[in-house]
Amino acid sequence: MISKNIEGKLNSGLIRKMFEEGNRLKAIYGKENVYDFSIGNPDLEPPVEVIQALKDLTASPTAGMHGYMSNNGYLSTRTAVAEQLSSNCAVKIDPDSICMTVGAAGAMNAVFRAVLDPGEEVILLAPFFMEYVNYIDNHAGKAVIVPTEKDTFLPDMDAIKAAITPKTKAIVINSPNNPSGVLYPASVLFSINDLLKAQDHVIHVISDEPYRDLVYDGLQIPSAFDYIDNLIVCFSWSKSLSLPGERIGYTAVSPRHEDYDILCKAIVFSNRILGSVNAPALFQRVIEKSINAKVDVFNYENRRNMLYDVVTRAGFSCKKPDGALYLFVKSPEDDMVFCEKCAKHNLLLVPGSAFHCPGYFRLAFCVSEDTIIRSEKAFTAVGREYGLID
Amino acid sequence: MISKNIEGKLNSGLIRKMFEEGNRLKAIYGKENVYDFSIGNPDLEPPVEVIQALKDLTASPTAGMHGYMSNNGYLSTRTAVAEQLSSNCAVKIDPDSICMTVGAAGAMNAVFRAVLDPGEEVILLAPFFMEYVNYIDNHAGKAVIVPTEKDTFLPDMDAIKAAITPKTKAIVINSPNNPSGVLYPASVLFSINDLLKAQDHVIHVISDEPYRDLVYDGLQIPSAFDYIDNLIVCFSWSKSLSLPGERIGYTAVSPRHEDYDILCKAIVFSNRILGSVNAPALFQRVIEKSINAKVDVFNYENRRNMLYDVVTRAGFSCKKPDGALYLFVKSPEDDMVFCEKCAKHNLLLVPGSAFHCPGYFRLAFCVSEDTIIRSEKAFTAVGREYGLID
Repeated sequence: MISKNIEGKLNSGLIRKMFEEGNRLKAIYGKENVYDFSIGNPDLEPPVEVIQALKDLTASPTAGMHGYMSNNGYLSTRTAVAEQLSSNCAVKIDPDSICMTVGAAGAMNAVFRAVLDPGEEVILLAPFFMEYVNYIDNHAGKAVIVPTEKDTFLPDMDAIKAAITPKTKAIVINSPNNPSGVLYPASVLFSINDLLKAQDHVIHVISDEPYRDLVYDGLQIPSAFDYIDNLIVCFSWSKSLSLPGERIGYTAVSPRHEDYDILCKAIVFSNRILGSVNAPALFQRVIEKSINAKVDVFNYENRRNMLYDVVTRAGFSCKKPDGALYLFVKSPEDDMVFCEKCAKHNLLLVPGSAFHCPGYFRLAFCVSEDTIIRSEKAFTAVGREYGLID
Repeated sequence: MISKNIEGKLNSGLIRKMFEEGNRLKAIYGKENVYDFSIGNPDLEPPVEVIQALKDLTASPTAGMHGYMSNNGYLSTRTAVAEQLSSNCAVKIDPDSICMTVGAAGAMNAVFRAVLDPGEEVILLAPFFMEYVNYIDNHAGKAVIVPTEKDTFLPDMDAIKAAITPKTKAIVINSPNNPSGVLYPASVLFSINDLLKAQDHVIHVISDEPYRDLVYDGLQIPSAFDYIDNLIVCFSWSKSLSLPGERIGYTAVSPRHEDYDILCKAIVFSNRILGSVNAPALFQRVIEKSINAKVDVFNYENRRNMLYDVVTRAGFSCKKPDGALYLFVKSPEDDMVFCEKCAKHNLLLVPGSAFHCPGYFRLAFCVSEDTIIRSEKAFTAVGREYGLID
């Protein structure tokens, strides 16, 4: 007597299967002898600014600090967020365009609830974070999956154009991308806007940006606000402040959005009725006090380099990621079969099929340097098995 | 280009209208001259145990304390919750039957997502917290509204029986009740179970219990676990620990539930995909450390008594509430018209129609004693206007 829709989903989930396989292997071989690259759980601790803000706020509690506030969050927090966003683009972001949310997952659900009616379509660019399909299905929408360009993983404008129908309500972009690590240059954002504005109805661009602050090699990430008009940004501090368990993020609507007023209201309302009501109060204040803090991005960059070297030395081919926490590597055979074989070497990877992009596998590099170093013998063994190296 | 479903809801909301009217009046007459009984925002500070737990946890941070955990929450927190629940009933509650959630609103959304398919029906007993209708509609269910017994506000078993169809998937109970303040005795819980178990399909009983710890006059609240088999409890610490802004609560499935295993899994999965992912990490630990703490219930009881006396002295008729934070008072004329007239006396109430129970109005007594005392002249004036007193 549970929902048939949910019953059908319960046994899916390739990452979870990998996670369970990992636990099984760790029980047999010991934790240190299993190389688990399956989960993108940021392993750095939050920056000192965050830890200090938490100490300060809880050491001197103020009346009502754990009570309800407006459903969109504290004005002071939204003002800090709006100022930070405005400082990175040529557009002036208003605090009222921000709705504080329960992470980016909460943000995306609020947005889909706000914009979708049953049967309306959302374009996803494969490879993509597989939960998007669940988020869309929660609100009776239909995911329309469009592949990106081969090897570059950049959006294929012709393919997107061909996928647009009168029912297309939104497109999701995610840069730096999970799992490919690709960063969309300004020209790509410009082209997406151009294509969508040429349509005869509004198509929302939902920019999921949890990895926005994790960019390497000194690259600058262009602000979507500068290039896309009908834009809704979904952000989370899960990665940039290592706070995934605390569920704190936001939505931000571009002031250039054609439906700005009603859309801002609809998102706040949806955030309320979906049960978040508001983002956690204490962490809204923590964010306000540490708005410019960031985790040690060089640490992630270093581990990206280390794992990239390990994998390529073992003969695998991989585009070096510009950002995020993953390597997306070409699979020498069917990616599902390959990942199962790797598990026999105690090497836990996620097949590209989980991201609707077969022929690849994903490695999360937010693991200890020690794990990366010790994993080399396993990668080398697999590389030899497939004749990639001598 | 927002959802038509959401667009239709945006301008509804009687409590919000009252809230806006209140802000308008406060701007004109000064905050101290407006008697705002419209919002159930607990005004007591969290107990010292909670404040201390927050200080302790943040003063000595541990690695990973803000990271992801299992989607259902920390085992140690769930164990503490299960033990507390077990100590109040004859049933042994398992930690794996608990899913930590983003408040009771998050809990109810996860439950409805887990059990409803489109068009399935949920019975609501009027008067009820109006957000239930939105929660059900989020998941394409249909709210079936059944009135309670006149004056007592207890469930009318014949009316419930008549409302059951093959599509009935669940019934929501809420004791102590918002807005009526009525507490369901054990015999009522027993009868509900009896009626539902006689049906030829499983009907989930969703017991929304945010006011469970706010019970007055030394009354004991019976545990729903002792009387109802196909039970799912939704709880929040918003009221009992004055933490509404922090969004912390749980779902608990009875071990006697016919669909126990799959239902527990479905709720955790739904909680994940709806965007909560997990309940806020820090407050899970705070709850664990202060599991037996409670706000000062006598304080609320005292204010209930004060406001009850003010209202009845002004000639109004009202059942003294057993629990929760509200008086539900008979309206001397159409409740919408009455509440508008009261606003002219700077008296802000919510019409019973907002709770699908016209002919009454609701007063929240979680306001200062001073507000209650100063409001008497306004109630007296209104009572005289309607000829209720000389």
